[in-house]
Amino acid sequence: MALATVSAYAQFGGFGGFGGRGQGNPTVPSVTENVTEDFKPASNNQSGHQYPMVNSQRMVRAQISAPDATSVGLDIDGKIYSMSKDENGVWTGTSAPQDEGFHYYQLNIDGASVPDPGSLYYYGASRWGSAIEVPSTDQDFWQVKNVPQGSMNEVYYWSTVTEKMRHCYIYFPNEYYTNTTKKYPVLYLMHGMGENEHGWAEQGHTAQIMDNLIAEKKAVPFIIVIDCLDAQPAQRAQAPAQGQGGFGGFGGFGMGGAFQDVLIKDIIPMVEKNYRVIADPQHRGMAGLSMGGMTTHSVTLANPTTFAYVGMFSGGTFNTGELENNDDFKKTNKVLFMSCGGKENMGVMEAAENLKKIGINATGYISPETAHEWHTWRRSLYQFVQLIFK
Amino acid sequence: MALATVSAYAQFGGFGGFGGRGQGNPTVPSVTENVTEDFKPASNNQSGHQYPMVNSQRMVRAQISAPDATSVGLDIDGKIYSMSKDENGVWTGTSAPQDEGFHYYQLNIDGASVPDPGSLYYYGASRWGSAIEVPSTDQDFWQVKNVPQGSMNEVYYWSTVTEKMRHCYIYFPNEYYTNTTKKYPVLYLMHGMGENEHGWAEQGHTAQIMDNLIAEKKAVPFIIVIDCLDAQPAQRAQAPAQGQGGFGGFGGFGMGGAFQDVLIKDIIPMVEKNYRVIADPQHRGMAGLSMGGMTTHSVTLANPTTFAYVGMFSGGTFNTGELENNDDFKKTNKVLFMSCGGKENMGVMEAAENLKKIGINATGYISPETAHEWHTWRRSLYQFVQLIFK
Repeated sequence: MALATVSAYAQFGGFGGFGGRGQGNPTVPSVTENVTEDFKPASNNQSGHQYPMVNSQRMVRAQISAPDATSVGLDIDGKIYSMSKDENGVWTGTSAPQDEGFHYYQLNIDGASVPDPGSLYYYGASRWGSAIEVPSTDQDFWQVKNVPQGSMNEVYYWSTVTEKMRHCYIYFPNEYYTNTTKKYPVLYLMHGMGENEHGWAEQGHTAQIMDNLIAEKKAVPFIIVIDCLDAQPAQRAQAPAQGQGGFGGFGGFGMGGAFQDVLIKDIIPMVEKNYRVIADPQHRGMAGLSMGGMTTHSVTLANPTTFAYVGMFSGGTFNTGELENNDDFKKTNKVLFMSCGGKENMGVMEAAENLKKIGINATGYISPETAHEWHTWRRSLYQFVQLIFK
Repeated sequence: MALATVSAYAQFGGFGGFGGRGQGNPTVPSVTENVTEDFKPASNNQSGHQYPMVNSQRMVRAQISAPDATSVGLDIDGKIYSMSKDENGVWTGTSAPQDEGFHYYQLNIDGASVPDPGSLYYYGASRWGSAIEVPSTDQDFWQVKNVPQGSMNEVYYWSTVTEKMRHCYIYFPNEYYTNTTKKYPVLYLMHGMGENEHGWAEQGHTAQIMDNLIAEKKAVPFIIVIDCLDAQPAQRAQAPAQGQGGFGGFGGFGMGGAFQDVLIKDIIPMVEKNYRVIADPQHRGMAGLSMGGMTTHSVTLANPTTFAYVGMFSGGTFNTGELENNDDFKKTNKVLFMSCGGKENMGVMEAAENLKKIGINATGYISPETAHEWHTWRRSLYQFVQLIFK
C-alpha cells in the first residue's frame, strides 16, 4: 500500500519536500564557481551557530568539524554535495541554488546520515532532522510581529477509534481569550506524506500567518485544529508494530479510512465539546497539503454536508464529474480552493475554471517559482484563509 | 561572567544535566561484561527506530550505520564509549548503567559530535540534541493518561525591556476552557543553565504532571507560565551578538537582572491582562530548577511581597539570615520549598528545619538516587505543586 501511494504522489512532479532522504542520492562536487561570497547564517539556525549559511544566490553552505573523517557530504534537494576539509579538520561545502523557502537536508559523515548540529530540527521526510530557510521575497507574511498574538496549543485527547491518546495542535486567535463569550468557526488542517501535526505548527508558521492577517483585517478570527493523518484502528494498533518508520506510519492512513473515522467521531466532537465553536457546516472547513489535500478531497466527498470550506494545497484537484450532480456538496460548499507550486503541474487553474461552470465557487492559486515544498503551502494557507468564514 | 557562574554551579555537585557535551570527555571501552541482553527501544525514540535501547540494568545501547567511519563513540554522562563496527558497517556500543530518568547524549563519528538520528531532540546542554529516557520506577506520574487534559500553549509577547518579541509556554488546566468565568492562580516556572523555556514543556512533562494530579484531586487547577531566563536589555541587544552560544546566551541572565525586569514589567502584566488570573500575591508563585532556582531566590528576595509560593529545585537554599528580619517576605510567603537529587548535596532538609524555626512554612525534598537531572526536577515539581494555592 505504501508503494502504491508513493507512486500516486510521484505523478505530481517529484518530491521537493523529501530532499535529503539520502537514499541513493548521487554525489556531486561542491559548487565552487560563480559563487557570490555574501553568505549569512540561516534564520533558523540553533542559537549562536554561524552554519548553515545561505547567500544571495540561494546557495546553501554547510560546515562541520570532523577531523578524522574521510568523506563528508551535504545532502539536499536529491544530491549529496562533497564537502572539503581544511587544516583544522573542518569540512565545508556549498550547494547549487535552491528554491525560495524551507528545505529538509542532512549531513553524511563517512556513510552515516545525521542531522546537522547547527540547524533547528523539524519533522518531515519521515524523520526529525535538519532544515534550512532559504530567504524568500515575500517571507514577511509568516514572521512573528508585534501584533495581537493568538496561541498554538498542544492538546491530547482520547480516540475511540484507535483506543489511544492522540496529540494535536489547536490555534486560537488572540480574541478567543479576551472575548470570553464569542463562538468561532473551525478549520481542520492536515499535513502531507512523511509529516505529522508538527508541520503546520512549526515550519508552516500557521499562528503567525493568522495573527498577521487578522491584525490587517484580511482574515476573520477562527480556530485551526492541526491533527495527524496516522490513525490505526484499534484492532490493528494491537498487532506488532512492523514497518512504522516508512513515511510516518503509513499502515493506517487509508486516505480517509481510519483517519476519517477519527476526524468525524473523535476530533470534531472533542473540539465542539471543549471549545467555544459554532458547530455547523457553514462554520467548518477542511484543508490539507499533498496527502492531506487528497485526504481533504476524499473526506469532504464522503461527508458532503459537513464542511462548507475546502482547500487542497498540492494535493490535486476536484473534477466536474465528481461534483456536478452532487447536490449535497454544492449546496454546502462556499469556497473550494486548489493550489500548487509553479514548478508542479496540477492543473489547478483549469480545474477551478471548469468547476465555476457547474456553479462551484472555485479558486485556483499557483505559488510562483516553488515546488512541492513548505513555501508553496505557507503561501497557499495565506491565500485560502483570507477567503473563508466571511 | 559566564565562567564565574559556571563555577557557582559546579559547587552543587556536578552537571549530570550537561552529559554529552563532548568537550574533553574521556574515551572508554564499550561495556561488554555482565550485560543483561534484555534491551528495549527507549520510550522517546523517533517513530519506527529501534535504537537507542535501554536494558534492565539501565545501560544505554546506541547503534548507527557509518560504513566508512574509523571511530564512532556514544557520548553520555561525561564519557565517550567506543562503539564497534559489524560486517555491514553498523556501529554498536553500550554504556555503563545510568541513573533513572532523562539524559542528554550525542554520537561522535570520526571526530564530529552529532545528534543520534534515532532519538527525539530536546533543548539542553546549550543545544538542540539527543536525549534518552532511562525507565524509572515512578515514571507513571508524568505519562499521558486518559484524564481531563489541559493544554500547553505557545505564546509570543512584546517585551518593553528587551524591545523584542519573546516566546513562552502557558499551561492551562482543563477547566480553564470549560469554566469560562473562573479565575486562576499562576505559577511562574523557570529552567536551568544551558536550557530554555522548552525544558519544562517537553522533557519536564509539566502538563502531564499537572493533569494527572488535578484528576487525582492532589493539586488544585492553576496556570503555569514557563519563560526563558535569557533576557538582554534593549541597549545590549543592539550590540554585536558575541558569544551567544555559551550556556544558552549568558550575557543578559544577570541572575535576576534583566530577566527580573522582564518578569515584573512584561510577563506578569501580560499574563494578568490577557488571561483569567487572580492578580494578587496570594495567588502568585515562582519556582525554578538549578539556575532557575537561584533566580527564584534572588527575584523573590528582591520582590518580597509579590509571590506567596516559592520553589527552588537543585538551586540551593534560603538561609535564616536572609529571612528572619524580612517581615515583608515572612508575611507574604505561604510555602517555601527546596529540593535536590539524592546524589547532590545541597542541605535542603537542614535548611527547611532552620527556616521553620523562624516561622517560615519551609519544606525540603530529596529525589531518591538521582543527580542534577530532569527526573529530580519532575519529581520536585510533582511534590511542590501539591502544596501550593491551597
